[in-house]
Amino acid sequence: MTFEPKFSVITACVGNLGDRFLTSGYKERVCLEDRLKRIAGIEGITGVELCYDPGGEEGNAALVRKLLAVHRLQAPVVNAPLVGDKRWSFGTFSAPDGAVRREAVETAKRTIDFAEATGAGLINLWLGQDGFDYPFQADYAEQWQNMVEGVRACAEYKPSIRLALEFKPREPRNRALIDSASTSLLLVREIDRPNVGVTIDNGHVLQVGANMAQAVALCSRAGRLFNMHLNDNYAGWDDDMIAGSVHLVEYLELLYTLRKTSYGGWCSIDIFPYRENAERATEESVAFLAACNRWVAKVGMEKIHSLIAAGDVTEMLRTIRTSLLC
Amino acid sequence: MTFEPKFSVITACVGNLGDRFLTSGYKERVCLEDRLKRIAGIEGITGVELCYDPGGEEGNAALVRKLLAVHRLQAPVVNAPLVGDKRWSFGTFSAPDGAVRREAVETAKRTIDFAEATGAGLINLWLGQDGFDYPFQADYAEQWQNMVEGVRACAEYKPSIRLALEFKPREPRNRALIDSASTSLLLVREIDRPNVGVTIDNGHVLQVGANMAQAVALCSRAGRLFNMHLNDNYAGWDDDMIAGSVHLVEYLELLYTLRKTSYGGWCSIDIFPYRENAERATEESVAFLAACNRWVAKVGMEKIHSLIAAGDVTEMLRTIRTSLLC
Amino acid sequence: MTFEPKFSVITACVGNLGDRFLTSGYKERVCLEDRLKRIAGIEGITGVELCYDPGGEEGNAALVRKLLAVHRLQAPVVNAPLVGDKRWSFGTFSAPDGAVRREAVETAKRTIDFAEATGAGLINLWLGQDGFDYPFQADYAEQWQNMVEGVRACAEYKPSIRLALEFKPREPRNRALIDSASTSLLLVREIDRPNVGVTIDNGHVLQVGANMAQAVALCSRAGRLFNMHLNDNYAGWDDDMIAGSVHLVEYLELLYTLRKTSYGGWCSIDIFPYRENAERATEESVAFLAACNRWVAKVGMEKIHSLIAAGDVTEMLRTIRTSLLC
Amino acid sequence: MTFEPKFSVITACVGNLGDRFLTSGYKERVCLEDRLKRIAGIEGITGVELCYDPGGEEGNAALVRKLLAVHRLQAPVVNAPLVGDKRWSFGTFSAPDGAVRREAVETAKRTIDFAEATGAGLINLWLGQDGFDYPFQADYAEQWQNMVEGVRACAEYKPSIRLALEFKPREPRNRALIDSASTSLLLVREIDRPNVGVTIDNGHVLQVGANMAQAVALCSRAGRLFNMHLNDNYAGWDDDMIAGSVHLVEYLELLYTLRKTSYGGWCSIDIFPYRENAERATEESVAFLAACNRWVAKVGMEKIHSLIAAGDVTEMLRTIRTSLLC
Repeated sequence: MTFEPKFSVITACVGNLGDRFLTSGYKERVCLEDRLKRIAGIEGITGVELCYDPGGEEGNAALVRKLLAVHRLQAPVVNAPLVGDKRWSFGTFSAPDGAVRREAVETAKRTIDFAEATGAGLINLWLGQDGFDYPFQADYAEQWQNMVEGVRACAEYKPSIRLALEFKPREPRNRALIDSASTSLLLVREIDRPNVGVTIDNGHVLQVGANMAQAVALCSRAGRLFNMHLNDNYAGWDDDMIAGSVHLVEYLELLYTLRKTSYGGWCSIDIFPYRENAERATEESVAFLAACNRWVAKVGMEKIHSLIAAGDVTEMLRTIRTSLLC
Repeated sequence: MTFEPKFSVITACVGNLGDRFLTSGYKERVCLEDRLKRIAGIEGITGVELCYDPGGEEGNAALVRKLLAVHRLQAPVVNAPLVGDKRWSFGTFSAPDGAVRREAVETAKRTIDFAEATGAGLINLWLGQDGFDYPFQADYAEQWQNMVEGVRACAEYKPSIRLALEFKPREPRNRALIDSASTSLLLVREIDRPNVGVTIDNGHVLQVGANMAQAVALCSRAGRLFNMHLNDNYAGWDDDMIAGSVHLVEYLELLYTLRKTSYGGWCSIDIFPYRENAERATEESVAFLAACNRWVAKVGMEKIHSLIAAGDVTEMLRTIRTSLLC
Repeated sequence: MTFEPKFSVITACVGNLGDRFLTSGYKERVCLEDRLKRIAGIEGITGVELCYDPGGEEGNAALVRKLLAVHRLQAPVVNAPLVGDKRWSFGTFSAPDGAVRREAVETAKRTIDFAEATGAGLINLWLGQDGFDYPFQADYAEQWQNMVEGVRACAEYKPSIRLALEFKPREPRNRALIDSASTSLLLVREIDRPNVGVTIDNGHVLQVGANMAQAVALCSRAGRLFNMHLNDNYAGWDDDMIAGSVHLVEYLELLYTLRKTSYGGWCSIDIFPYRENAERATEESVAFLAACNRWVAKVGMEKIHSLIAAGDVTEMLRTIRTSLLC
Repeated sequence: MTFEPKFSVITACVGNLGDRFLTSGYKERVCLEDRLKRIAGIEGITGVELCYDPGGEEGNAALVRKLLAVHRLQAPVVNAPLVGDKRWSFGTFSAPDGAVRREAVETAKRTIDFAEATGAGLINLWLGQDGFDYPFQADYAEQWQNMVEGVRACAEYKPSIRLALEFKPREPRNRALIDSASTSLLLVREIDRPNVGVTIDNGHVLQVGANMAQAVALCSRAGRLFNMHLNDNYAGWDDDMIAGSVHLVEYLELLYTLRKTSYGGWCSIDIFPYRENAERATEESVAFLAACNRWVAKVGMEKIHSLIAAGDVTEMLRTIRTSLLC
């Protein structure tokens, strides 16, 4: 059972990054060409997740294709621009305003067009503005219904392009509609189109104290795990840290489960290295995950499987420890 | 649109209560007769959720029926004894050991028999031991499959008795299989039997920073909200405090939503008054929820609905404040 | 025992507000004059917390004084610009780089000068960049020592101006040095200057599941509660929501405790109304807090005190409920 | 700079363990002799933390001394029985009832006597019942004052025996008085006796998202780090799991810091292996921590120190990864 993760990085990770207290950012703006050039230099990275930017450099399919070719990068996934714009302040597909909902569907369709034009087979739908901040702010059943219809409309637009819903429990809204793997799968079932699936950002799982491997197993069981985002955090917020900077055992279990379920998608590094060198931080993330994957191969699927089957947690930890630390 | 919640209390709440540091309990053991007598004296309570105890007082249907009649209490719901026994240390319907799984199904069937014998139409399935504590401890896909099959087997036993899955994110296991409203609904869909639904314990929603009214709305939309448990907490753990001791606005929204969705089940107080008088703590919980319900009626469904539709959070908060505090 | 809170608002709250996904903001930039004009129109607000901006409008003492006079606003507090600038990426008084530390002290001194020039008697020191993101990133003992020395140097600059340390557990750094009321008091003791005290942002208390009234009581007991910031959140993050939108009982206890300890400082609204009208959101926050304060007066200090002394939580909740909801 | 941690285990860890849903426990009762025998067989363990049990086996100094000698175990620390008894339902040294406070001081003095009689130089004071559950339940300033006086009275009883305050943010009370390292140090300062210090339970640090090494550094800087308890958790609750089952990098930093600060106390395993073999779980915890300690030695203090000084997080992570996983 061989498994070699394909690593990419989201183009935004190597640009300027700000937060609510320093909106101008901790770094400098970097043009697309420079971002791709930097990314191409990162050991272990062979692809990018594009962030479609209508009217901007990253919305120019010809330019993007050219730069990808120059830097020998694949671009399997395109992120839809459905968060970082005032228009989406109260949501996209589930916004209370029908005009906004229609605009969101149009934006997603243009993202699909852009994906097609750049050779990507998948668009990533992180719908972080869909949800609410306060009690008494949303008609939850209506929101759900609108979400189903909006995603379905996009799914039907060009069935050859797949759509992946990226759940996240909160931020920027205090509460998100698509908050967990289960919610995503429930939506996917109701949307009922074969090209709609799930992106698991492992940090969005850790953030609420859930288990990454379980999320992978359940999405895979449903045949809907389309994409992975990777980073680390302290298990209370989406800190978007370098992979492996906090957790270890759960990462080993994650890589074991990706292999076990024959995950065929990409592993895209999605970190916010506000104060770190982005390329090195990305490279370290890739190296950590690749090392976890080699560890799984070294210990062996059968051995791990038999320890799980035996329910012997202590022996499993001993195996991990002696293979790493002794 | 009238709505009068029916209030019950779980019989265990008025007994002795211990924690892991004081297992012998903060109070004294109370026999069933005394518990029911005490409960009967609580203003606003007209029913109990029984805790089926095979071989014990609370497993004797004739005795229970007699005591219920004496104290003029209804018993619409019976809790299955699927947590507090060593046998379930590693789970019930989803335990790795097939013999344990079969025993769990048998236990649930006996609970169904007991429900039938005592006139309850619903059994509550809180499966708190199904899940895991450590990474690498569970085969998640297998767990899920076993859970589906176990609940389905129980559902088919006597289709006139309904089953409600009570989700909870963690405790006693560090991670629970049935952790959220979405996971419950996903399971319910896959189990695919009309008599399987969901119990929402509002504290299990707050515990992970989710919204109680949203959980109600989404379970109702699916036609599967069968039962409610009520208490309060500080939004980080299942503290099982007196309702209204921490939160307010979200409770008002919860009662609004129960009314809006014409919730027809019971509202069962589920608190752990380790150090408080249990009857008074229960009574205060009921009184708080009833007052929230009257507040909804007083302000009016149309006004609340129109404020939500207008998306005017500040005006909604002003309405709440001026109706209560000024 | 009378107590009338003085309400102010931080000038930044009525400006444009962005987050890490929409750094250009959810609103439009508002010039200082317009911000003060808007603030002056908020019912219940009589002061502002300025945000010193060297070289900008809010760094021009003459302009500020003039505008304050025009709008009849007091400005009792000035925030030091020690977070939102790249220079402070790795801290201010506790930065590893001595040059940065010196620059931070200079910046604080200029803030003190500006406070003096605008008639403010207090500068607020929220040192959100002092801390760390990753393990193995800080020499904790050295950080602490540098923090003590930096604050002490500022305290000695003009002893008539008071300094208030505003603790916050995290954000923007994943971990903050000054993370709690206790840490603040410990620092204050070691800094050992009479003009150094604490700002309690009630949201920074809720954010880690601590109790606001307790923080007030302990800082007051030490004679060091200099300033209050007010907002609400869901108890897991600094959501900076409208006061009273989530919690109630703990607010009543907070106002009771401010009265009991004869708090003499200001209550400054510190919310982030990204998607709301800032003036109305601020006004509602003030109105809620003022109403909580009236509630305390109405119920009476002696009655509340006697319920606490009797340890009767249920009766206290009954008192609150019947005074509000029945 | 050599550093060899001395490992012990709390005697309760190898006994029966229950939780609030299964108070009779997941295991069987084990008599003291068998517990010590089992402990003596754990590789790497040379001592125990006793749990003083007045009137019980573990309160019989002669028996304890005999069994310790037989099993060649040291007993450097004794836990005071100030949590698991109904008498302490509302606190010990800070209980509102003066009679309870006096009884608590007496109990602590008897613990000190027992420590003296068994050759332990330190008593561990985890005061988990001191705090509150609800708002409006405590007079916080009075609680603090009573705590100071109670601990001081115990400290003065036999100055040769040291007292260590073990902070924990919550559980069993929803909010604890001694909740953090900073609160402990603040109390220690006010108690102002040389034999009063702090026990850091690393899980109680992780539980609220704080940093273990920082806690060690700050308590050491104050000269008051007397004792360590060790376990692991998911960073949201005191799960008391096997050390190393969740975290890695922060453990390495912890061991680095214990070495750097020349920690001279014991490292006591404090886990709750409800469903695991306790001896093996303890042994694995010790082995993990010892391996972390060897890692520090292998990489070298100077190298680690220089990476921290350089502020190069990515290089530090690369160093960890390549030394373990490649």
